[in-house]
Amino acid sequence: MKEVYDYIESNKERYIEWLQELCRQPSVAAQNRGMKETATLVEYYLHQTSASTEQLSTSGYPVVFAEVNTNAEKTLSFYNHYDVQPEDPIELWESAPFEAEIRNGKMYARGVADNKGNLMARICAVHAYEQVYGKLPINVKFIIEGEEEIGSVHLDEFASKYPDKIASDGCIWEFGYKNPNGRLQVSLGVKGMCYVELRARGANTDLHSANAAVIKNPAWRLIWALQTLKDENENILIDGFYDGVLEPDETETQLLEAMEYEEREILSSLGLDSFLLNLDGLELKKKLLFQPTCTICGVESGYTGEGSKTVLPSFAKAKLDFRLVGEQNPDKVFQLLREHLDRNGFTDIEAVQLSGCHPAKTDPNDPLVRTVVDNVKDVYGQEPVVLRNTPGTGPMYDLCQKYNIPAISLGVGNEDSRNHAPNENIAIDDYILGIKMMSKIIHEFAN
Amino acid sequence: MKEVYDYIESNKERYIEWLQELCRQPSVAAQNRGMKETATLVEYYLHQTSASTEQLSTSGYPVVFAEVNTNAEKTLSFYNHYDVQPEDPIELWESAPFEAEIRNGKMYARGVADNKGNLMARICAVHAYEQVYGKLPINVKFIIEGEEEIGSVHLDEFASKYPDKIASDGCIWEFGYKNPNGRLQVSLGVKGMCYVELRARGANTDLHSANAAVIKNPAWRLIWALQTLKDENENILIDGFYDGVLEPDETETQLLEAMEYEEREILSSLGLDSFLLNLDGLELKKKLLFQPTCTICGVESGYTGEGSKTVLPSFAKAKLDFRLVGEQNPDKVFQLLREHLDRNGFTDIEAVQLSGCHPAKTDPNDPLVRTVVDNVKDVYGQEPVVLRNTPGTGPMYDLCQKYNIPAISLGVGNEDSRNHAPNENIAIDDYILGIKMMSKIIHEFAN
Repeated sequence: MKEVYDYIESNKERYIEWLQELCRQPSVAAQNRGMKETATLVEYYLHQTSASTEQLSTSGYPVVFAEVNTNAEKTLSFYNHYDVQPEDPIELWESAPFEAEIRNGKMYARGVADNKGNLMARICAVHAYEQVYGKLPINVKFIIEGEEEIGSVHLDEFASKYPDKIASDGCIWEFGYKNPNGRLQVSLGVKGMCYVELRARGANTDLHSANAAVIKNPAWRLIWALQTLKDENENILIDGFYDGVLEPDETETQLLEAMEYEEREILSSLGLDSFLLNLDGLELKKKLLFQPTCTICGVESGYTGEGSKTVLPSFAKAKLDFRLVGEQNPDKVFQLLREHLDRNGFTDIEAVQLSGCHPAKTDPNDPLVRTVVDNVKDVYGQEPVVLRNTPGTGPMYDLCQKYNIPAISLGVGNEDSRNHAPNENIAIDDYILGIKMMSKIIHEFAN
Repeated sequence: MKEVYDYIESNKERYIEWLQELCRQPSVAAQNRGMKETATLVEYYLHQTSASTEQLSTSGYPVVFAEVNTNAEKTLSFYNHYDVQPEDPIELWESAPFEAEIRNGKMYARGVADNKGNLMARICAVHAYEQVYGKLPINVKFIIEGEEEIGSVHLDEFASKYPDKIASDGCIWEFGYKNPNGRLQVSLGVKGMCYVELRARGANTDLHSANAAVIKNPAWRLIWALQTLKDENENILIDGFYDGVLEPDETETQLLEAMEYEEREILSSLGLDSFLLNLDGLELKKKLLFQPTCTICGVESGYTGEGSKTVLPSFAKAKLDFRLVGEQNPDKVFQLLREHLDRNGFTDIEAVQLSGCHPAKTDPNDPLVRTVVDNVKDVYGQEPVVLRNTPGTGPMYDLCQKYNIPAISLGVGNEDSRNHAPNENIAIDDYILGIKMMSKIIHEFAN
């Protein structure tokens, strides 16, 4: 592999330019900005390798699908996305969000960490490997969707429609970061999600609050309904909700113990004194990765401006996300929620499921995982931190676990990459390491 | 009195024009629009009578004070205000809000019902009486503040500073309406109020909701705190809160029984099936007038736009109004609320009292009340509906009850006057009746 690493080093400037060019092309799915141009640009870079490419239509933005078919026995797929989050609030960016300026060894751009840096590192790895060895030792597929930042709304549909295209022996997932200690983290799964909006209605118009003595207040109805969902000890009170939540097994407990979570630094940066329930150590990490949540993401009713307004609201709503683990199922959770509300007398509260996503995880002993974990030291000089899963969510079930494809997530981000926020960035060194790491995985996955 | 009534009839057009002119002068306290001009214009109309006037400064807008001193034994005061609510939303007005257009027997203008119509009817009554009889049989005072629509913030200060100016044997309060059956309602009191904002804080920034497994969510803290305040049977759970709430006595119960509350029409117009707790009849009216409330006027946290956003909010707030009755005290209620929150473990939730107002009521057997009630039939052709108090709030305690001045509220509004809303209006006939009624009260209060 030394020749490949050397090639990457000597072609560093080119690979950095490619990433800059890709980042300079906005691709905001939520606003339909530059989506077509970006899909075509991604194909252009894939054509620097021997990959054949096509844009496969979905009911939303197309998936860029690419394949390097070497007639090898094994196939590795890369899941990425070419869309990015909106760049707001612009005024907090130190350089323009689509300028991709390099300062102090970092490239700053909307999408550079999430996840154009990862996408380009994988393309460059194939490119460098082919330049040095002529041919990959495995088949490689790229599945690059355009809707990850708006909830991967059509990825399940896509996967069902093209089972042959997504088939592989393993998938390298889209994201990955170094932890605050500078150690690479690799993740073997994601939590699932059931996102719900609850809506309560009162009179057909807002009223003077003098009427509140005798007229139903939807804000109160919503508060009373919400408080039946979770108690102050963070117990979620929906019957059957915890079915399918699994305790970590021995291997998972070992991984949890080895996981680095810098408690004091995190609390200090957030201005907090303690974590929920005063947890720390293993129990804290266990809750973070192995427990489901019920989170109020938003709630609104009536007058919320400055000062006093004496109004009896006609409407109230709350947005909830349930992060799911183990064998929990988003549709089942939604059904349990509805039954819970009805059983507690809240038949008047409307519940709408806005999205659903199954949890997913890959066996730590899967050959793909071993290949990745065993080879990180070769590139990074130290062992990775293996996370059983991340607290976040992604469509790993729809694209991988549903089809028995193992998946593992690693990438070029750092602990301060600021995904979805102003001044999103990656370190140039991490980008180059990422290219090397992917070329090493391609090399070793053949065995 | 027939001569006075006749004078009013034959000077109808002039009195209508005066009201139109006053309504055409905007006076929006919340936006400091036209306040000075309106105070001066009000003085101009007062000068059509024999009243001496002055503008008494406060820490806010001045109070227009006027006096007709006839050296009589008895003094009647009129409490009114020259400020109006903002006219938003303008697009829903059928004629311009400061045009004071007359259509189908009604005058439409911001402030015409609340309460320029009442103010002008009282001035016109003094004018007509003086034109016919030369001199009033009583002394009359006008206390016309400029901050009623922003909470009468300096009225208590004003009353304390000028005890001699506000002294009287009775006060005619600012508002009054015909009920849906066309019967004049007179009201002998108002509820008090304690308006509070609750604020909960989490981390120093909004976070990705994946962190909700281990980081405090202020939205949940607020929900849990709120639900300790009131149960689903509308019982307010704050220790000591009901101290000072009084059961209606025999007279009050009789008044409640005689009160007209068109249940089916009200429910139908609001698109509702039932009142709170399925109340009806006497119990419903009792709850409306004799029970305190705890109302969520507004609540807000996190993301409240369209669709899903997985955010762990850093802040949550709720606005609450407590309407108070009997001998409840707003400052005491606020103190009980704070103690309740602390006792229930919500020391982390900030409570800020935004305003406070004592409940107030006048003895139904007070001479002022008898004078008004006994004489309504003379003008309106039928008995009034006497409300022990209104479910709404006003500074009647600060200006009257605190100084043992009886107060009674009646005016020229109708059941569809739309105070604070687009197309605010009064009927021209009700305005003329209002002028006659006030002249009759001036006449009879002498005895």
